[in-house]
Amino acid sequence: MNKKDYPNKIQIRVRTFEVDSLGIVHNSYYLNYFEIGRVEYRREAGYKILPGGVFSDGLIVVVVRNEINYRSPAHFDDILNLYTRIEWIKNSSFCFEQFIENQETGKSICDGKGVLVNIDSNGNSFPLNEKFKSELINFDKNIKLIK
Amino acid sequence: MNKKDYPNKIQIRVRTFEVDSLGIVHNSYYLNYFEIGRVEYRREAGYKILPGGVFSDGLIVVVVRNEINYRSPAHFDDILNLYTRIEWIKNSSFCFEQFIENQETGKSICDGKGVLVNIDSNGNSFPLNEKFKSELINFDKNIKLIK
Amino acid sequence: MNKKDYPNKIQIRVRTFEVDSLGIVHNSYYLNYFEIGRVEYRREAGYKILPGGVFSDGLIVVVVRNEINYRSPAHFDDILNLYTRIEWIKNSSFCFEQFIENQETGKSICDGKGVLVNIDSNGNSFPLNEKFKSELINFDKNIKLIK
Amino acid sequence: MNKKDYPNKIQIRVRTFEVDSLGIVHNSYYLNYFEIGRVEYRREAGYKILPGGVFSDGLIVVVVRNEINYRSPAHFDDILNLYTRIEWIKNSSFCFEQFIENQETGKSICDGKGVLVNIDSNGNSFPLNEKFKSELINFDKNIKLIK
Repeated sequence: MNKKDYPNKIQIRVRTFEVDSLGIVHNSYYLNYFEIGRVEYRREAGYKILPGGVFSDGLIVVVVRNEINYRSPAHFDDILNLYTRIEWIKNSSFCFEQFIENQETGKSICDGKGVLVNIDSNGNSFPLNEKFKSELINFDKNIKLIK
Repeated sequence: MNKKDYPNKIQIRVRTFEVDSLGIVHNSYYLNYFEIGRVEYRREAGYKILPGGVFSDGLIVVVVRNEINYRSPAHFDDILNLYTRIEWIKNSSFCFEQFIENQETGKSICDGKGVLVNIDSNGNSFPLNEKFKSELINFDKNIKLIK
Repeated sequence: MNKKDYPNKIQIRVRTFEVDSLGIVHNSYYLNYFEIGRVEYRREAGYKILPGGVFSDGLIVVVVRNEINYRSPAHFDDILNLYTRIEWIKNSSFCFEQFIENQETGKSICDGKGVLVNIDSNGNSFPLNEKFKSELINFDKNIKLIK
Repeated sequence: MNKKDYPNKIQIRVRTFEVDSLGIVHNSYYLNYFEIGRVEYRREAGYKILPGGVFSDGLIVVVVRNEINYRSPAHFDDILNLYTRIEWIKNSSFCFEQFIENQETGKSICDGKGVLVNIDSNGNSFPLNEKFKSELINFDKNIKLIK
């Protein structure tokens, strides 16, 4: 997938409290970066981000899987480019695909995927509504719709 | 104040993600340690700790001030002793006093205070009930009651 | 794999600053729990944990991949059981397999894997020494040795 | 002190992993915000921020005290204005003064101070050099020089 195919790109500056004793961003912290990217993707797609949570506009969506590959370390004060797209949508779930590069060098830092599931008030998976799906597909042209 | 006058003492092991590039615990993280100590103080005083929050048994209590003095650094894998007492209770507020030492060397790591205020549903300060105050004073003998 | 086949089991209590606005442990924080388990696995296997880092006894080991499946949420003050084993060892890398359950209910919270690679001072992958491999296989009987 | 007297002002957006179960920024996290402000103050004052740490250009500076007063809560996705100045410089130490307001409402969120000390390689306090002091006083007009 080409960089231009990621509808959301943001910049993140690495902060003191995000690096460990090796001076590099701690492996868990990248999932925080990914979550920032997912929120900004939502905002760019035109959704209101409410104080109650990213999906507090009606959907109840939970993360059921994350995977991440670390390619090279990021250091304090580095500026990182974070790219976010949705790879696929199924009946009740969808999958973010994201990667991070060093802004200055272009070097790949990490890439990963995260699967989110829409649930009902009992915590069971529940079909995404058609409006949500068509809005997303309209915003993010390369989403694969899996029946 | 003597160590024996702190009703709660717990041990904390320093973890990888709590240290910064100097290999020492980041200055903000000690406030997390202090909060762990405040929860365990509550537990030892006989209060039920509910999933909704430390004070979800009726009180609505918020932190209005923290202060902390850093005496010497703590490193990854150090075991720390954290001592917690309540210094004073006023009409609607009370103040924790806490300190941390290195378990092995006894060296002082940091000490601090935190003021919490009881609020009503509008967010205004509200008098602590007498039952709560007398329970605390019974548990923590050196609390100073300030009228 | 049976619970008894995980050489290391530790308990973790969920803390206030680890839960998000839904009152559940934030998805990134489980990678911190996993790292705690990996350190304690090392300790139980007889390795000295040095202030400079988990693998500061000669090896330089970096995390190259994490994956995690979230099964059910954990809440503030829950006690969690974290089980850690090594699934396989290759020439220069090895893979942790870990899962977390709620201690009281036995309910599955999450499970995941993490791949670590031994590197040389230039950052290139470098074969694990035979002593390290044989010590691990002796400690953790179900490790699969992949040539 | 007037807002215009703070030489550095930055904006911070509150992220999902920074709020607790009440949906408000956790009390310890504000010290991270303060540290971001101190780094950006340094950058604006013309200092190079090196990967090894904020003061890795020669000075070895450690935080010896933080204090913070919480005025009103900040929520997920709020944009905050963080103002940073240096209040005073002594022989070997100096003190940041900082406050945070909600950008949209102007409401005060918190304010605090942090004292940093210059140390030598043995960890003892060591006089700040005159060049550093005069540069700072030139940049931040309201600094009080305490002999």
